[in-house]
Amino acid sequence: MKKTMLYIVAISASLMSFGAAAQFAKPEDALKYRKASFTVMGTHFGRLGAMAQGRVPFDAKMAADNAEIVADMAKLPWAAFGEGTDGGDTKAKPEIWKQGAKFKEASDKLQAESVKLAAAAKTGKEDAFKAAFAATAGACKNCHDDFRAK
Amino acid sequence: MKKTMLYIVAISASLMSFGAAAQFAKPEDALKYRKASFTVMGTHFGRLGAMAQGRVPFDAKMAADNAEIVADMAKLPWAAFGEGTDGGDTKAKPEIWKQGAKFKEASDKLQAESVKLAAAAKTGKEDAFKAAFAATAGACKNCHDDFRAK
Repeated sequence: MKKTMLYIVAISASLMSFGAAAQFAKPEDALKYRKASFTVMGTHFGRLGAMAQGRVPFDAKMAADNAEIVADMAKLPWAAFGEGTDGGDTKAKPEIWKQGAKFKEASDKLQAESVKLAAAAKTGKEDAFKAAFAATAGACKNCHDDFRAK
Repeated sequence: MKKTMLYIVAISASLMSFGAAAQFAKPEDALKYRKASFTVMGTHFGRLGAMAQGRVPFDAKMAADNAEIVADMAKLPWAAFGEGTDGGDTKAKPEIWKQGAKFKEASDKLQAESVKLAAAAKTGKEDAFKAAFAATAGACKNCHDDFRAK
């Protein structure tokens, strides 16, 4: 059972690398793309943060709209961490490629939390939104701590 | 009637500027954000183009997935063209702010075409996809011709 799982993980990883390599013509394109997707995600996440931290009054529609964009954007950057994209102007740590499974787990966690955040924001309940925001922020931080240079 | 329309346009424009100003702390943030959203949109649009132009075999799922991202991204950059964001490292022409209504029309057109493109891609029909891709590409070009420096 464990062997089968490892095999599936290995296959998936090799497909992922192939996919990523095929998707970007040059490593610089992958870098530019993943930074861009983090910039868009971060902008909208920042607006949620302003509400979650009370710097801006809670607005249910604004929360729902921004959280939906965050959930959409959270799917994108990972395909751009393919082989050969560890150099150049990047804060990505080598650990991303050395600990691929752990990095994938961390990125999966962000995607899962951001989906929950979008659902919580849609309820219009400030408390649920704040709790889901904190969980998502935790997923950001967790991954940054391990995989992003200061 | 004409006066009322002008009044509504003026109000909307002032609200738009206010919204944009409130959304970005600094003009540089708006520039970085709108470039980033165009980068993400362009990457996925490029993948659709490769299929539309036959450089890559048509893949219905890939077309649907990428077109959905393009439609999502096509909503984003416009809020980042607020007042005071016409300077700095940008290809945005001054016409964007001088001909606001025309720029809005062009950006609305892209959004409408990209929604149609996503719907066409979802049908899985290559011909429908190609036609919608061409219409969307036309909307890109139309806006770039008028509002983006070479």
